[in-house]
This record gives sequence, C-alpha cells and structure tokens, in this order.
Amino acid sequence: MRRTGRRPGNPDTREAILGAARNAFAEKGYDGASIRAIATSAGVDPALVHHYFGSKDKLFLATMNSPMDPLELITEAAAGDRSELGVRFVRLFLQIWDGPAGAAGVALLRSTVGNEWATKMFREFIITQILRRAVPKLGLDEAEGQLRVTFAASQMVGMAMARYVIKVEPLASAPIEVVVAAIGPTVQRYLTEDLPGVFDGTGAGG
Amino acid sequence: MRRTGRRPGNPDTREAILGAARNAFAEKGYDGASIRAIATSAGVDPALVHHYFGSKDKLFLATMNSPMDPLELITEAAAGDRSELGVRFVRLFLQIWDGPAGAAGVALLRSTVGNEWATKMFREFIITQILRRAVPKLGLDEAEGQLRVTFAASQMVGMAMARYVIKVEPLASAPIEVVVAAIGPTVQRYLTEDLPGVFDGTGAGG
Repeated sequence: MRRTGRRPGNPDTREAILGAARNAFAEKGYDGASIRAIATSAGVDPALVHHYFGSKDKLFLATMNSPMDPLELITEAAAGDRSELGVRFVRLFLQIWDGPAGAAGVALLRSTVGNEWATKMFREFIITQILRRAVPKLGLDEAEGQLRVTFAASQMVGMAMARYVIKVEPLASAPIEVVVAAIGPTVQRYLTEDLPGVFDGTGAGG
Repeated sequence: MRRTGRRPGNPDTREAILGAARNAFAEKGYDGASIRAIATSAGVDPALVHHYFGSKDKLFLATMNSPMDPLELITEAAAGDRSELGVRFVRLFLQIWDGPAGAAGVALLRSTVGNEWATKMFREFIITQILRRAVPKLGLDEAEGQLRVTFAASQMVGMAMARYVIKVEPLASAPIEVVVAAIGPTVQRYLTEDLPGVFDGTGAGG
C-alpha cells in the first residue's frame, strides 16, 4: 500500500474538497451550499467532487465523520413488519455503535455539543439526513411525522450519550437485546402509535 | 451590595473551597473525596465547608453548576399517584429547563461531553445524585432499579440534548404539555411497568 505524501501547493484533493465543504456547510448550511461552489473553492472540477463522494448527502456525512448513513439505517429498518419497526431500528443502531464505528459516533457526539458551530452542523445533520428522509421512508403522516421523528431521535441521542459517551452502568454493559427490549417499544410508539395529547393540542392533562 | 475584592493570599473562601472540591472529586471521585481533605486543601475549617454548602452532595452539585438538585426533583415527582410518576417527573424537568436554570443545564451538558474529565464527573453525578437516590426514593426493586433508572435517564438526557442543546424543531418549540404527553409514558414504563425481555434474559426476541 503506497500512500501519496502531501506536498505544499499540492494538497490531497479529497482533503481539499472536504475542507471546502466544511466551510461551505458551516457558512451557508446544507441547502445553501452547492457542489459547484465547493468545487470552485477547492480548485477542482465539480465532477471530481461527485467522483470522490457520490452525492451532496454523502459529502455532508463525510465532513461530519458520521459513523453511518442514516438513510441506510432507516431504509433497512423500514423493510419488514411495521409493528417491529422500533425494535429493528434500535437493534441496527446499537449494532453499529457497539461495533468499530462506535468510536466515530462518540467523537461526533462529543464535537457536536462542544461549540456552537458544531451544534449547528449537527442540527443540519438531523434535519437533512434524518427528518427529511425518515418521514417519507417510514410512510409517516406529513403533519405528525416531523415531531414523531424528533421524539425518536431524542431517545436515540440519549441512549448514545448514556451508553457510549457517559458510559453509565448497568446500561453501558447491558446486552444489545436487553436495550432493544426496553427502548425498541419506545421508538415504535413515537413513530407509529397513537400519542394522546400530542397532536390534539390537549397536552397530557393532569 | 458590596462585594469583597480578591486579594493575593486571601482568595474568596467559597471559591477556594469550590476549587479544592473540584480537584478532589476529579482525582478521587465522589466517594473518595472527603469534606475534611477538601477543607484542608482549601485552608479552612471543615465546619466552614458545611456552613457554605450544607452537605457533600450540595458541594458536589455546586462544583458541577447543576441547574437543579436531582433529589428535590425525584422527591417531588415521587409524591402522588404512582401511575402518574413519569408524567410528573417529565413536567418538573421541563419546567426547570424551560426556565431561567435552563442555561446552566445546557452549559453542564456541553461541558460534560467536551472532555474525559468532565464526562467522568457527569458519570459520578448520575451515579451518586440520581441512581443512588432515585431507586430508594421511588421504591424501586433493588435488582431492577438501577437499569430502570438509567433507561429513564437516557430519555431525559436525550430530550435535554434535542430540545435545549441541538434545538431541533418542531421539538424545541413544542409546548411542555405536548412533550409531557409523549415522553411521560416512556419514563413511566421504564420506571414502573413490566419490561418483557429486559430482566428475564430473553432480550427482545425476533
């Protein structure tokens, strides 16, 4: 395996694109940043950006060092019996985080809350890579879907924090299937079940 | 309001105690740090530590700039109909975080994941200030209580992250009672309801 060393004035193209993309996403947000402008800023042809990263989504995920493509996770979880959606999603999520990609996930979460810029990028990540894709992929009602998915995301972010970042026991060492049995039904309920008081404007009462 | 200026060799006593306490908790953990050793390190009488902070728990909460004393929250939530425990807890939690103390909560969460030291302190916070107190206060089964409380904590940490740190919509602007209606039953289930597959070693199956 021969790796090309970096030389002044001839930086690694992939890194140059990633650097330009990070700046563009940070300044203009996901929607405002264009592949064309990123390519210009990196001094390369737009076709090269597509060649290296495939799509704007993939480029964005690469700038964030995301441990996974949420679209793949959502697509895989969506395939199968709808009543087991939550359990499948949580199981896939934990399998990724318990595996070699977990360290990247922890780094992402850590950087996310470290400063305002990173927090804004993580918000864009949730909006563009999770909310926008999950609502149609999961066949959720347009009016309710966004809030349902943010509730599910709150549980998954909290699980990642508690199990992988804070590492609080006995949760941190619990077998995957134990965690799936506990929070799978939570995610299922948030995504597909009746939520009295949430969409009818009455609140929880009491 | 007259405030005493700091002079070299005569630092503000309260700050000196807090500084000594931070070091002691970081080095020895909550259990290993003693009021006596903290007082010695700060160059004051142990009685003065009690005078300023009341208890080791309160001193620990002060070093972490905690927006609330979890014991008070747990105690208040525990009073009343047990079937409404989750709803009461989530409502109290959101009222605190939606209020003036919310900024301190966000700062705590941000600092928590920023570095290993802060993460370790937050783990101690969850263990000593939440787990140890919640299990007896809520009358939970000793064998199951710790895991139940960490599941509930994962949802609350995630809610705080999503609503107050990442501020993802529509969750960030949802009325308190809408959030209570959604996640109150989750916390209730984690704390008091039957959780098939969690304690019987069978997992979620499937």
